[in-house]
Order: sequence, then C-alpha cells, then structure tokens
Amino acid sequence: MSRLFGQELRVINMGLESFALNLERESVPVLQVDWKPPLIDDPRLIDLMQRADIAEANAEVVRRVQQGRPILQGVSTAGEAIPGMDKHLILHAGPPIEWKRMCGPMRGAILGGLMLEKLAATPQEAESLITGGEVKFAPCHHHAAVGPMAGVITWSMPVWVVENTAFGNRAYAGFNEGLGKVLRYGSFSPEVIERLRWMTQELAPLLQAALERHGLLDLRNLIAQALQMGDECHNRNKAATSLFLRELAPDLAVLPAEREQIARALAFMAGNDHWFLNLSMAASKSVLDAAANVEGSSALVTMARNGTDFGIRLSGCGDAWFVAPANFVEGLYFPGYSAADAAPDLGDSAITETAGLGGFAMAAAPAITLFVGGSPAQAQQYSQKMYEITLAESEVYRIPSLDFRGSPLLIDLLKVCKTGIRPIINTGIAHKEAGVGQIGAGLVHPPDGCFQNAWKAFVQRTGPKGPKPQP
Amino acid sequence: MSRLFGQELRVINMGLESFALNLERESVPVLQVDWKPPLIDDPRLIDLMQRADIAEANAEVVRRVQQGRPILQGVSTAGEAIPGMDKHLILHAGPPIEWKRMCGPMRGAILGGLMLEKLAATPQEAESLITGGEVKFAPCHHHAAVGPMAGVITWSMPVWVVENTAFGNRAYAGFNEGLGKVLRYGSFSPEVIERLRWMTQELAPLLQAALERHGLLDLRNLIAQALQMGDECHNRNKAATSLFLRELAPDLAVLPAEREQIARALAFMAGNDHWFLNLSMAASKSVLDAAANVEGSSALVTMARNGTDFGIRLSGCGDAWFVAPANFVEGLYFPGYSAADAAPDLGDSAITETAGLGGFAMAAAPAITLFVGGSPAQAQQYSQKMYEITLAESEVYRIPSLDFRGSPLLIDLLKVCKTGIRPIINTGIAHKEAGVGQIGAGLVHPPDGCFQNAWKAFVQRTGPKGPKPQP
Repeated sequence: MSRLFGQELRVINMGLESFALNLERESVPVLQVDWKPPLIDDPRLIDLMQRADIAEANAEVVRRVQQGRPILQGVSTAGEAIPGMDKHLILHAGPPIEWKRMCGPMRGAILGGLMLEKLAATPQEAESLITGGEVKFAPCHHHAAVGPMAGVITWSMPVWVVENTAFGNRAYAGFNEGLGKVLRYGSFSPEVIERLRWMTQELAPLLQAALERHGLLDLRNLIAQALQMGDECHNRNKAATSLFLRELAPDLAVLPAEREQIARALAFMAGNDHWFLNLSMAASKSVLDAAANVEGSSALVTMARNGTDFGIRLSGCGDAWFVAPANFVEGLYFPGYSAADAAPDLGDSAITETAGLGGFAMAAAPAITLFVGGSPAQAQQYSQKMYEITLAESEVYRIPSLDFRGSPLLIDLLKVCKTGIRPIINTGIAHKEAGVGQIGAGLVHPPDGCFQNAWKAFVQRTGPKGPKPQP
Repeated sequence: MSRLFGQELRVINMGLESFALNLERESVPVLQVDWKPPLIDDPRLIDLMQRADIAEANAEVVRRVQQGRPILQGVSTAGEAIPGMDKHLILHAGPPIEWKRMCGPMRGAILGGLMLEKLAATPQEAESLITGGEVKFAPCHHHAAVGPMAGVITWSMPVWVVENTAFGNRAYAGFNEGLGKVLRYGSFSPEVIERLRWMTQELAPLLQAALERHGLLDLRNLIAQALQMGDECHNRNKAATSLFLRELAPDLAVLPAEREQIARALAFMAGNDHWFLNLSMAASKSVLDAAANVEGSSALVTMARNGTDFGIRLSGCGDAWFVAPANFVEGLYFPGYSAADAAPDLGDSAITETAGLGGFAMAAAPAITLFVGGSPAQAQQYSQKMYEITLAESEVYRIPSLDFRGSPLLIDLLKVCKTGIRPIINTGIAHKEAGVGQIGAGLVHPPDGCFQNAWKAFVQRTGPKGPKPQP
C-alpha cells in the first residue's frame, strides 16, 4: 500500500469530473473519461443489442425513414382532412391526458379552441362544457397530426396536408401563429381568437390557391437546404420560412384576390421566423408514421409532451405510450420571468428531434444558442453526442459544420439504456398558467422513466427470456 | 558536433512542411511552425508598423468603417444617378484599362452594353465604334460604383442607390442577372440583351415603387443576419436574397401593376441565389468610400480586377491604383471546362472581401465549399488566417462558427508585407473568350506585385527616410 502511494500517480477518472479537477490542481496527470452509468443494468440488454432479428427490424425502420418523401399537398381544415375528427373532439399535444391533469397552457389553449369553434362564448362556459363531459380529447398523434406546445387542433382550423409519397400516408399540422400571445402557449384573449379566424377565413384559402398554382412542394428538400442555412428546423426556422415564402410569393402575387389580402398573407409569414415550424413537424410526422409498427424494432418513432407527461413510442411496441413526468426546460427566460414561472416541457415539436432535426441537428444552427442558451461549440457537441444513441445518419439532412455528415437519425432505446445518454431537445418554454404565453426557450431531456418503462415493455414483447437482472 | 547528434533531437521546423514530415516518420519530436517569408524585406517596415501617426490614421479608417451605415435608398438609372455618367461612357470592373488590353469577357460585356444602348446593332458595329474612339471607358470605382465580373454599367441600366448615412456618400451597382448566359460573364446574345431591357423597363420601376412603399432598408443589418444563415455575401447570397425578397414581397404585392408583372419580378429574384450580391457590393463600396483618403493609413479600401490587372488602393495614398497582372482562379469547373478555358481573376466583387465579407467571412458559409472547393474546416482556416493581416474585427458582421467573433476587417498593407499572407478572395470564373459565360468558381489571391508597388508608394509618401533596404 505504501508502495502504491510512494510511486508517481497516473490517474484515470471516470464519471464525476470534480475528482479529476482536484488532482489536476495537485499536478497529478489525470485522464478524464466522460462516462455515465447505464440507464438499465440488466444482462439481457447486451443480448438484445446483439440479436439479429432486432438489428433487421431496426434496419427496416432506417430504410423507411431514409426513403420518406414528405410532400406538401396543400391546405385543408382539420374537420375535412383529419381522419376521425369531430366537432366536439379537441386534439392536443403529447400522450393521452385528462382535463384535470392538464397543465395551465394546455387548458388555456383548449378554452380558446372552444371559443374559436363558438361552442362557448367565455372561458367559464368552455370550462363547464368540459366538466359536463361534452368535450372529447385525444392526442394529435392518434390522428396523424402534430401540434407545437399545447398543440390544440379544433374542427375549423386550417391544416397543412403533407403526404409521405414513398408510403402513401398523410400527416397534418395547423398554421403557426407567431410569437407573443398565441393559442399554442395557452393564450385565449380576443386578439388570439381573431388571428385564428383570419387564418381560417383569409390566409388558408390564399395559401391553398397559391399551392395549387405552385404544385407539390418537397419539404425534405427545403429542410435540407435550411440546414445549410443555419436552421435546425425546430426552434430556428428563419431560413426555411424565408425559402418557403420565396418559393410561394410569385404564386400568391397572381391570385385573383384583393391585393391587400395577398400582401397581408405575405407580411404575416415574413413577420414570423417560426412560420415553417409546423411544416417541419408535419414532414417529420409523415416520415416517422411510415416507420411505426415494425415488430422487433427498438427505434423511437414518437417523442411528445403534454406539459404533464413526456411520452415516447417504439416502432416495435405498436401504439403503446411509455410515459413519465415531464422535465422542466433549462434555458433563457424573457425579461421578468424565471424558472419558477415555467410549465414543464410541452408539445409535439420533439417530433423534429425524433426525425434527426432540432436538438439533433443543432450543430447546423450555431446562432440558435442566442435563443436557447449555450455556445456554438456546445451546439456541435450536442449533435455529436446523439450519434452514440442513434441507428443511422440521415442521407438528406446534412450538417455543414460536421463536414456535411448526415444528422443523427432514429434514437435506439437500447443504446439509450446502455449509454445513459438522453436525447437532447430544444424547445420553447410556456408560462405555467393559462393565458400568459411564451416566457423563454431552452434545452431539455426526456425523463429516464420513459426509457425504463419502454425497456420493460420491449424486453417482455421481444424477449429473450434471458437471465433475470442481478439483485 | 558529435555531442549534438548524440543527444535526443527536439526539432522546430519553419516553412516547408516536408522536412517535419520526414522527422515525424522517424519518431523525432517536431514542432511545425507555419511561416512564410515576408513579402517585403526592408527594415523600414518594422519602423512603419510602430509609427503612432500611422496607427492613428488606421484607427480612423477602422472607426469610419465600423460606423458605416449602408442604407438602400431605392432604384434609379446609371444615367440619372451616377455622377459623371454620360451616354458614351462605359463603366467597367477593376483598375483603368484600354480596350486593346481588355480580357475576352470584358470585351463581350462592352459589346453587349453598346447594343443594349442601341449605339450599335451588331457586335461588329460596336467594335468599330470603339476602335473609332467614340466610346470612353472608366472604372466603376471612379464613379462611386461597383460591378461584378466584367462590371459593365451603361447609361440606361437600372442601379441600386445605397447611401452610407453615417457619412452621406452614395454608392451604385447594377442588378444581378443570374447565372448562365449573362452580360457580366461576357455574353451578349439576344436573350442577354432582352433580359437587360426587361430589367430596365419592368423590373426596375416595380422595385423602385416597392422600395418607396417599404421605406429605407438597412443593408448592414440584412448582411449581418445572412452571415448567421450560411452566407458570406460574395459567392453565397442565398440567405440574403431570401431575406431581401421576404422583406419586399408584401410591398410588391400591393403595387398597382399587372399581377403577372409582379409575379415575374418575384420569380426572377427567387430564381437567382446571387440576386443580393450586387447589393452586398454596393453596401461594401459605400462603407469603404467613406474610409478612403485618410492620409497615413496603410489600410486597403479597394481590391478590384479587370481580368487583366489586379488593382488595390490604399486609404493613405489618395486615388492611386497599385496594379499587377491578375492571377488565375483555383477552383471547381463546370462540366466540360478546365483551367485552360479560364479568364484571369475578374470583377469588382472583391470589394466584399475588402469590407470583411466574402473569403474573409468564409467560416460563416461552410456550404460555399461545394461551389468554390475545399472543406468547411478549410473555410474556417481561411477566415482565421485573415485576422493576421487585418486591422480590426467587425462589430456587426459576426461569424457563428468562430463563436460570433467579428469578421476580419480592413486589410493592412504593412501586415501583408510583414507576414507574406495574401488576402483570400472567392470568386466566379469567366471563360476567357467573349460570349461564353461562367465556367466555374474558386479561390484566388491578389498578385504580390500589387502589395510591392503599394509598399513603394506608401513608404515614399509616408516616410520615414529610414535606412535603405539591405542589398
């Protein structure tokens, strides 16, 4: 023992960095190994990771996602386009949830939705409708749809219709309302409802007519370009919005509508750097839906939050949700707000990360750090880390600062369990109370519970009946 | 001696890397120092670099450039707006040059310009006008103007009017014609002339009317945004073009013109990723012109090429040009073309590099390497290298991948002479013959001769009467 301490120390330190820092201060040579304990400590994990049938199922999921072709078909309304929609059904973000467990901003958005549909004249009336059992709720995800933040979609709202032409399935998302007081952040003031009415009555018909003139619009191609232009197409959509507007402006300009209406449509889109977000989400959804239900696959095809729970779905586990309480977002707050005001992580927008965009493509968007915090170097590290828990690299979405490497694609439950590395999501932060709106933006991880629950279900469904975990 | 070779070697190698590589292969520890011989070997160089009055003059140039506010005022015609313009005067890129020394593409563009102005009906007629002495030539730079490639500006052409509102001076540039067969690359076919006529008759009045509705447009702000979106605003202007169109589309849409004309204007700009280049150039020119003629300053305020000569101008040397034969561009050629087909380096567009954009901001535009060659890592190195020969870092133009460091700003003749590092310029490549057009894009340096000539003039004008250079 005295011999050990007598000789010169050369230390390898794993995990907690503070041990290494202390040694460094004493001039002891020390190698810090960035290591996390696995999320699941179960010998069956290694077996499953080596199983050929699981690898094949995952390869099939990868193939389907790489081949996905999200094409914007046009504009419709939720009532007309979304399968199973109904006038008293309200779609919301995240996994299923009852009214009484919903967070403030989701409640606010639902109250606003009921007023928009003229099912209620006041928030009080809307609430009694709900407590009287006259309103049904369902996740957007159960209806081939996605919505950012509260994600509320009601009967009369306009929706983008995106078809994954490689597989024939469609996905839907509403229009983006911009920042400030907006329904998706739980605001339901008259100006919010007014804007939504204008979208339905004026903006949607114009965009539909312009898109008819323009013809199909390849969203995959547009997103790929935007990644070369500093977007990651979740919280930064400035380039994608500009490219979309640039593409559609000539067709809008010739429409036989009042010039002021056309100008208003152009100005609204031009005034909203997040305009493209909902298209990015619908594109991601249409691609991932075609990769769902591949028996045996450990790939995530959904990550979504309702502001109370975070839910994930696996391609190999049918329609089952694996949920756990949603985390709080770490990020930058607008002046006057702090973490104490924040609702937990909220929205379907993590569909972008699930499809290799957003946090996974942050290296493409150094300027996003001004909005969500961190530095360009960190943004690069976030993307790089995600290669350790994904199954593939996108063949179309390429990251310039990583030498045009394809973005990390398709989170593997088993790799997350093995490495303990959680997917990174960048996101907006809503005020916890209904009616306030956005108060910041930042970064968040899904809770460990989602993966632990998914692991149990996956191992039960996919076997093997290997040895039990060590006590 | 034997003692030297007996002991363990630790080598520092300067310059040629192959020596270091050989030692590395023999496992000898070797430190490679990236060093170039100075361009000027003259003891007066160090004296001048330490002179307080020169430092002060350079600080004044830096101050003026940092304060520059290039604001787009509107659209006019060369004849109306450009001081000293005249119907028989043709402005061209680069330093002054006579017809007989002009390169193919510049000659082609001039023939096209004379036909556009209906001074000649055929290229032959145009050429006899010239040889008959009925046409005058002058650099754009002598008339507060800039033009990409051949840079030909004639009487009736529409021009952007940019005012540097901090100093009250104006700069002018024509409209960008797009790629393919265009006047600036020396094409003068009927379709080229037709497009230029359409620009004058239809596009320019629409843009002028839209800009009048829109109000002043801050180009510095727009360029700063584009640098966050993968542009360097010389050979990549995709984001800036999109932002410009997005900004102006609502005002175009409400104009009391035929809808088809408005749509054509929007579609033309949307179809040309280089649309913004001429605005980037006029903005750069307006800022640098306000920094010219600061006695004692060793800062470059002009770099320009006429396809035969490369010329630079120093703030501290009045209007004098320092010229040397233009280099050939190293880059990527379009299919079917090679270096043997290329004209030498051409155009006023190096005004962007002179103002801290283009090659100097390449780190902001990793995707440009697909167009001009190299890798994103090299693009970053190019920008970083330029800090060694510049006087300042831009307070507005920031490079995300360098942690938002300001772009390297204002080339210092003395630093170039001392380090031997040449400014990097990215640029299009024109076919050497008139009438063909663009055949590639790449990277180029000004010839050493420009700096050697400028050095002689600067040392003569600014003193000191120090010791003569060593023989």
